[in-house]
Amino acid sequence: MPFDLADARRRDAENPLRQLRDRFLRADSELIYLDGNSLGMLPVATAERLAQVVRNEWGGELVRGWQHWADLPTGVGDRLGAALLGAAAGQVVVCDTTSANLHKTAAAALAYQSTRDPGRHVVVTDDRNFPTDRFVLAAVAAQGGGELRVVEADPVAGVTSLALQTALAPGDVAVVSICLVDYRSAALQDLAAVTRQVQDAGALMLWDLAHAVGAVPIALDVAGVDLAVGCTYKHVNAGPGAPAFLYVRHDLADRLISPVPGWWGADDLFDMDADYRPAVGAARFQAGSPNVLGLYAVDEGVRLHAEAGIDTVRAVSIGLLDYLVALAEDLLAPLGFSLASPQESARRGGHVVLRHPDAYRIGVAAVERGVVGDVRPPDLLRLAPVALTTSYEDVFTGLTRIRDLVVAGEHTTVPARRSRIT
Amino acid sequence: MPFDLADARRRDAENPLRQLRDRFLRADSELIYLDGNSLGMLPVATAERLAQVVRNEWGGELVRGWQHWADLPTGVGDRLGAALLGAAAGQVVVCDTTSANLHKTAAAALAYQSTRDPGRHVVVTDDRNFPTDRFVLAAVAAQGGGELRVVEADPVAGVTSLALQTALAPGDVAVVSICLVDYRSAALQDLAAVTRQVQDAGALMLWDLAHAVGAVPIALDVAGVDLAVGCTYKHVNAGPGAPAFLYVRHDLADRLISPVPGWWGADDLFDMDADYRPAVGAARFQAGSPNVLGLYAVDEGVRLHAEAGIDTVRAVSIGLLDYLVALAEDLLAPLGFSLASPQESARRGGHVVLRHPDAYRIGVAAVERGVVGDVRPPDLLRLAPVALTTSYEDVFTGLTRIRDLVVAGEHTTVPARRSRIT
Repeated sequence: MPFDLADARRRDAENPLRQLRDRFLRADSELIYLDGNSLGMLPVATAERLAQVVRNEWGGELVRGWQHWADLPTGVGDRLGAALLGAAAGQVVVCDTTSANLHKTAAAALAYQSTRDPGRHVVVTDDRNFPTDRFVLAAVAAQGGGELRVVEADPVAGVTSLALQTALAPGDVAVVSICLVDYRSAALQDLAAVTRQVQDAGALMLWDLAHAVGAVPIALDVAGVDLAVGCTYKHVNAGPGAPAFLYVRHDLADRLISPVPGWWGADDLFDMDADYRPAVGAARFQAGSPNVLGLYAVDEGVRLHAEAGIDTVRAVSIGLLDYLVALAEDLLAPLGFSLASPQESARRGGHVVLRHPDAYRIGVAAVERGVVGDVRPPDLLRLAPVALTTSYEDVFTGLTRIRDLVVAGEHTTVPARRSRIT
Repeated sequence: MPFDLADARRRDAENPLRQLRDRFLRADSELIYLDGNSLGMLPVATAERLAQVVRNEWGGELVRGWQHWADLPTGVGDRLGAALLGAAAGQVVVCDTTSANLHKTAAAALAYQSTRDPGRHVVVTDDRNFPTDRFVLAAVAAQGGGELRVVEADPVAGVTSLALQTALAPGDVAVVSICLVDYRSAALQDLAAVTRQVQDAGALMLWDLAHAVGAVPIALDVAGVDLAVGCTYKHVNAGPGAPAFLYVRHDLADRLISPVPGWWGADDLFDMDADYRPAVGAARFQAGSPNVLGLYAVDEGVRLHAEAGIDTVRAVSIGLLDYLVALAEDLLAPLGFSLASPQESARRGGHVVLRHPDAYRIGVAAVERGVVGDVRPPDLLRLAPVALTTSYEDVFTGLTRIRDLVVAGEHTTVPARRSRIT
């Protein structure tokens, strides 16, 4: 069957989530947006709710709003946990940034483990992990009197079971932290198997779900995961700078102490003369005042995903990704592109990465052509057709435009990489 | 001269900032809002800008927005620093929460000091400091292998020079952190004198400006302050959960390392394979993705304050506070209220506190009467007539209503304190 517009439209007509596409703002009908894994699109309901919250709640209720805003971090956390994380109530709190939450949970895990057994002082991660994770975990290990052990990851498949086995073998590992979906290759780890492997070695498992949440089904409770963090501005569509989340398994929470024990993590916010007594459950990992606007945006994003159902999202996502991979093979492979993500869709998250020596300049030129993906050094073009917002027609049109611009050599006039790129 | 409505209106007519009052949303014209030091009112321009940012920037620019959003934390920081902190560019960054920023700056200061001189391992604060500060500083001291030394503060005057001298005498202090304006008594410290006293003893000075910024003129550069943190949702009118800020003196910044070295504090965001190289200046204290919406709200709040001028704000604030104190003496002292703030206006920040054995129940009953202040355990009613948003008529009406409700005994039916109050 040929790849053409009619074929793409036939596929779209069969998409069970096609009607949700109208729930997002489309300011530019010509724009092909394939970067929802970096910043998700704006749900119309979110724009309306934020406007209402600003005027009626901040403007109208003023300080009295805290009587209900105070419950947002755990309330939205519970709803996020139920819809997208497979987490029962009380274990998820929406707060701070992924970086801050990784710092807090990793530091608490290392302190807990090394207090029980001074021999357990090693933090394990991988050499291809996201920059924040590598930087923060190194700092946590140093601050906690521990040691960072960096596993070599495969550029496509990510961290292998064998590499992890070698890292865990000495029996000195306190906590392992890797990403469920790799931010470059999209490699999807086996949540339950890795968690079990880590726990069997006596270590705690701390997942970074940034690129996974909202893209793939996640079952934290079933897998017995210890700790997790992630962001909400990608596949959860909560907007730039929306608060991140963290998960702490219910029977573990009360044994962990946040290294940033701000008053919002205390048991009683207004018992102001008392010593610090941490709140029960994941809520103790809050520190300062909640980002109220951002929390409402997370709530709306979660609501949309709950309506779609994460299993349906995943099925639609795989359809779109497989189509994109096949189309890229057809249109782009002859121009020097190759797939740098796992071939098998079950082993990928919600995006794919194509390799091309000129990826950076092609990515910039594509934006000029109205196709927004993103590039990652040194030679990767990252593309995400997102189940809730992207059509097959978008993918067809987007890849066709990329082929055309490369054929026309439009990218050859783009200057070399600047320091800050999208 | 009698205190009456006509007198209050005469005073309002002479207020040089009276026209700025119309720049804030007033959803309920009967509401007397005396809690702008807890949550500042909503500027109309902020509501409009947030709506525009949500639809046009998030919705329209999508991920391309980061090309300019990325500059917000330092750009808004520079404008905040210029308008309200007496800080030249490059030293202020708007990010995270006050709790998180206090943790990062205090931990960095302790690490820096104790590396230069292992004998300098003590963190000093006071026993009446805000809960977050006491909790976080204790944790920082413990995590850094140091020790917390808690100075006894006077309930009204706050930390005295003598108490500080005693705490500094052993020569082992790494960093001192207290509030410029006390959250309960409103006691205003002498920024320059305390900074000098601390630095003369070889310690670094870390100010918490939460209740001071936007209420009193602050000259960080002139005073040679080392570090400062503060929030923006009080007198800066940036809304619930708006990001906080931190200040690091320019010649100190490059010697300090954030304990949460997330990728947003790195020198090059997208040099993704590199080791952590911190950004130049205060920007290195960023960690995760900026709270874009909150940053725009801070920017609008700062703009309003810049237009008013902090010296005018302070003059108007003192007029309102002196009036409130005199009126309270007249209307409320006979009912058992007493001033628990310094008598002299030059020694107070932007609010005052009245003591009454039934403060909690009176505060709750006052809300029912349309007068919103707040209460702090055990017996304090905190009231803030804010220069940009409160009129003399508001103060007159508010205190009259409080007198009337106490005379009528309306507070006696209010149940005892719940866990969470505003």
